[in-house]
Amino acid sequence: MRLEKIRAEIDAIDHEILRALHRRMELGLRTKRFKETVRDADREREILDRLTRNSGSSRILRDGFVRGLFASVMDESRKIQEGDRTLVGFQGEHGAFGEAAALAYGPGLTPLPCPGFADVFDGLQKGSLDLGIVPVENSLGGAIADVNELLIRSDLKIVGAVKLRIRHCLLQHPGSDYREMRTAYSHPQALAQCRRFLVRHKLEPRPYYDTAGAARMLAEERPQMAGAVASRLCADIYNLDIVKENIEDHPDNYTRFLVLAKSEARPAGGKCSIVFSTPHEAGSLGAILNLFSAAGVNLTRIESMASPASPGDYVFFLDFLNDGDSARTGSLLDEVRKRAKTMKFLGCYDEATG
Amino acid sequence: MRLEKIRAEIDAIDHEILRALHRRMELGLRTKRFKETVRDADREREILDRLTRNSGSSRILRDGFVRGLFASVMDESRKIQEGDRTLVGFQGEHGAFGEAAALAYGPGLTPLPCPGFADVFDGLQKGSLDLGIVPVENSLGGAIADVNELLIRSDLKIVGAVKLRIRHCLLQHPGSDYREMRTAYSHPQALAQCRRFLVRHKLEPRPYYDTAGAARMLAEERPQMAGAVASRLCADIYNLDIVKENIEDHPDNYTRFLVLAKSEARPAGGKCSIVFSTPHEAGSLGAILNLFSAAGVNLTRIESMASPASPGDYVFFLDFLNDGDSARTGSLLDEVRKRAKTMKFLGCYDEATG
Repeated sequence: MRLEKIRAEIDAIDHEILRALHRRMELGLRTKRFKETVRDADREREILDRLTRNSGSSRILRDGFVRGLFASVMDESRKIQEGDRTLVGFQGEHGAFGEAAALAYGPGLTPLPCPGFADVFDGLQKGSLDLGIVPVENSLGGAIADVNELLIRSDLKIVGAVKLRIRHCLLQHPGSDYREMRTAYSHPQALAQCRRFLVRHKLEPRPYYDTAGAARMLAEERPQMAGAVASRLCADIYNLDIVKENIEDHPDNYTRFLVLAKSEARPAGGKCSIVFSTPHEAGSLGAILNLFSAAGVNLTRIESMASPASPGDYVFFLDFLNDGDSARTGSLLDEVRKRAKTMKFLGCYDEATG
Repeated sequence: MRLEKIRAEIDAIDHEILRALHRRMELGLRTKRFKETVRDADREREILDRLTRNSGSSRILRDGFVRGLFASVMDESRKIQEGDRTLVGFQGEHGAFGEAAALAYGPGLTPLPCPGFADVFDGLQKGSLDLGIVPVENSLGGAIADVNELLIRSDLKIVGAVKLRIRHCLLQHPGSDYREMRTAYSHPQALAQCRRFLVRHKLEPRPYYDTAGAARMLAEERPQMAGAVASRLCADIYNLDIVKENIEDHPDNYTRFLVLAKSEARPAGGKCSIVFSTPHEAGSLGAILNLFSAAGVNLTRIESMASPASPGDYVFFLDFLNDGDSARTGSLLDEVRKRAKTMKFLGCYDEATG
C-alpha cells in the first residue's frame, strides 16, 4: 500500500517531466528562426555547466548522468529544429479547439500554444510562426470581435479556413469512479453548451478560464469527485478517460477558424475575403454590393463591425466565391477599391471541414 | 531580445526537470525497502508504455526519444538504489537547517526531506529511513516541544547529536539588482533573528512557512524586488546568489539536532540521554539527581516537560557524560530506574559541531 503511494507519486513526476520536455522542445522550435545555425555549442556548454553546478549539491544526481541526459535532450531538440516543420500558432493550451482545428487543417502541422490571439498575430509578423489559426465565428456564439479587430489592424493574409464541429466530451481522471462525480469544470461557454446534459446528470458546472486548462488541471491536481468538459484531443493529451462523447445540447455547434500567414495562398483558393469601409453617403454599401451581383459573384458572408481605427465608422467583412478567373476577381476588387473609403484584400483560400 | 526571453524560459524548464528528476530518484530510494529486488521489469515496461501512449499525441516528442530517456532515468534510479546509501530523514524542504545538520554529521549521508517531524519518526519506525535528524533545542528559541513529545512516545534511540551554528544569508535571484530589493521572505523566526539587519537595509520582512521554502519560491516564481533569508545550502540548491552572509543579529545562535535510529549507537558515545518521571513525593527528583553527583557523573542538561501521557505529571530529560565505564553507567541507571516512576534510556552517543 505504501509502495503504491510512492509509485503513484513517481508516475505523476514522470508526466510532469514529459510535459516539461514537450514545452522545452516547443520553445526550441521557436528559437530556430532567430539563429543562424541550429547548433550553438557555447550555449549548450553553458547549459550543461549550469545544470551540473546545480546538481552537485543534490548528492543524488551524478554529474555524468545529468550531462548525459541533457545532452540527449539538446540533441533531440536540435533534430526537431532541423526537421522541416510548419509551425502553426493557436490560442490556448494544448487540447484547445484551435489545436484540433489546426490538425484538421493539416495533420502534419506542428501546433504551438500561444497565450492570446494577439500572440498568434505577433508570432506571424515576427516570423517565429509559419501559420496561425484563429476562430472567427461560432454558429451559436457569433463573431469573435477581438480576432476581427486584429485582422483589420494587421497585414496578414488568410490562406485557409476550417469549419470545426465543436464536440464536447465529459472527461475524468483514470481510475476515478464516474458515479461519484459531482462537478464539471470548463469554460463558461462550454458549460452553457452542455447545460441540459449537466442538469440531467446532476453535475454542478464549475467555470474555469479555458476548456483545455480545465482538462489539464483535472490531470495535474486531481480534484475529488470532479470531471471536465473539453475536447477529445484533451483526453489524449492529458491522459484522461472519456466518460461520454458529444454531450453538447445542440449538434449544430460549429466554429469557423481562419488560417493566417504572412503572404497569400499559392495557388489562390475558391473563397476570398476582403474588409472595407464606405464613405458617409446613402447607398454607398449598396453600390459596392451591386458590383458583386453585376459580376455574378456569390457573397457567402457579410458582417459589419464598428471600426477600431475611426470611432463612429463601420467596416464590413465580405466573403465571396472565386470562380478561378483571377483577372475578373482582380478587376472586381479594383472597382470596389474605387468606391470604398478603405479596402484591404485578406486572401483567396480553400475551406476545410473538421 | 526575444531569443533571450525564450532561452530564459528554457533555462527555467531545465531546472524544473532537474528538480523533478531529483525528487524521482529520492522516491525511488524510498521504494527500495519495500521491494525484494531493485529491478521490477513489469513496472518499468508499464511506465514506458504509459509515457509513450501520452507522448504520441504531442506530435513533437518521438516515442523512441521518450523511451530512451526514461529508460536511462530508470537505469540511474536503479543504480542509485543499488548504492549502499544511508538515508537520513529531515523535516522541511531541501536546504532546511536540518539538512545542513545532517551533512555536518555525516557528509556521505543521503538526506531525504520529510513534511513533518512525525514523518521522520514514522519513516524510521517503518524502516524506509536509516537515520533521522531532528532539532531538539535552539539557543535563542528554547526547546522544540513537538520533538520532545515524539521522543517520549517512540522507542527510537539517539545515536548522535550535532550543534549547528545557524547562519542566515540574504539570497537573491541571479541577475536581479540588490539595490532594488525591498522585501525579504523567510520563516518568521528567521526574520526575527535578522531583524536589525533588515531594518538597517530597509527590507520589509515577509513571513513564509519555511526558510528553504522561501528560497525555493524565490527561485521558481521570481517575485519582483524580493529576496529570501535562508541557509547557504539553499543558495547552492536553488541556484541563488548570496548577497550577504551571517546576517543574524546574534552570533550565538545554535540549534542542537539529535540523530535517531532504531537501535543504539555501537560503540556507545560520550554523552547519554534518558527521560524519566518521578513519583509525586517531595524530594524524589532531588534523590535521583543525587545519584549522579554521588557517582561523580556530570549532568549537561536537565529539562522538564509536561507529560503528554499523563496530564498533570512532568517528565525530565537528562543528559550526562559517560566516562566509558559502561558497567558503572549501567548500575547508575538501574538505581535511577528503581526510584523513578518511569524511565527510558535514549542512548549514548557523540556530539559533533557544524
